[in-house]
Amino acid sequence: MVRPKTQRGIDTKERIIRAAANVFYQKGYYGGSISDIANEAGVANGTFYIYFDSKLDLYKYLLSEYGKRIRANSSIAIQNAANRKEAERLGIKSFFEYVLKDQSIFNIIWESLYIDKNLFDEFYSTFAESYAQQLKKAQKKGEVSNIDPKVLSYVLIGITNFVALNSIVLKQEKNTTHIVNEVMKVLENGMFE
Amino acid sequence: MVRPKTQRGIDTKERIIRAAANVFYQKGYYGGSISDIANEAGVANGTFYIYFDSKLDLYKYLLSEYGKRIRANSSIAIQNAANRKEAERLGIKSFFEYVLKDQSIFNIIWESLYIDKNLFDEFYSTFAESYAQQLKKAQKKGEVSNIDPKVLSYVLIGITNFVALNSIVLKQEKNTTHIVNEVMKVLENGMFE
Repeated sequence: MVRPKTQRGIDTKERIIRAAANVFYQKGYYGGSISDIANEAGVANGTFYIYFDSKLDLYKYLLSEYGKRIRANSSIAIQNAANRKEAERLGIKSFFEYVLKDQSIFNIIWESLYIDKNLFDEFYSTFAESYAQQLKKAQKKGEVSNIDPKVLSYVLIGITNFVALNSIVLKQEKNTTHIVNEVMKVLENGMFE
Repeated sequence: MVRPKTQRGIDTKERIIRAAANVFYQKGYYGGSISDIANEAGVANGTFYIYFDSKLDLYKYLLSEYGKRIRANSSIAIQNAANRKEAERLGIKSFFEYVLKDQSIFNIIWESLYIDKNLFDEFYSTFAESYAQQLKKAQKKGEVSNIDPKVLSYVLIGITNFVALNSIVLKQEKNTTHIVNEVMKVLENGMFE
């Protein structure tokens, strides 16, 4: 992956990335070709190779961009949270709203399991490690219970991902407030009477 | 899909199904051909068509078999549970142990998202509906809190799936007891102090 030096270069690269996201969502990673991506971006095939070495190189870049964007989205959402409980609520809500706007992310991210399962592992490990760091800090402050932060981070990622994919993407439920409220009940008091 | 009438037919069909699971895990649904499956099963291509109309027909059958086996496994595990809390613990533990023995299930089940997303939706909707029924019963008995059972079922499926895939399959953590204990802490008391 080459970092463009001019604004025009930055724009072209961004066009290729957006085109790739569309192509991978519509045709899958294996079904979509570099020609399809170049076509969709309105550039010549040769232009693709100015920025990326291969389809895999572009896919890896796209994956890391999704990771950064999702984490940035969440950081902004929780920046004024008074405590971890409020941060969880705001973070989960912002993820659901992110998914409402871009429903293709699961298809694209989870396809890594079929391209190279280490990419999938790396993607969620990076997420889980940064989550676990935040949870450890909150544990030191006495805001979060004594639960293995590694397991807890996968519990939280699992909840948000599965609820988002199944309820929001597949069932098209738009009332994220209700879903967030119900999820928070579990996180606040558990599920048993 | 044809139901075989003789024991020999049942065995052959079972061999084709197990071969298909291997081929789909190794090469993916699109990468694996009917010839690959017949080869792996040690039968002629024509024999395949005695039992299944197409690769998709076989894939759908495999998916519904996984659903049945996972639910049966869980039903057996929880049959003597005194209450819903014990049932959750036993059900989660049995799923983790199921995954330890057959680590290919996520690859095969989740590929449905790329074959026909309605298959993925149907698979998890069926799971979630049966889960929600059990949760509703437990709510009537006063064992489970007043949480939307549909959301709660996806919360629980999300936890078990993500923890199983990321910790057990990808990180090869074999200490399922520790993981179950940590998950149960969240389900019993929530995650906050």
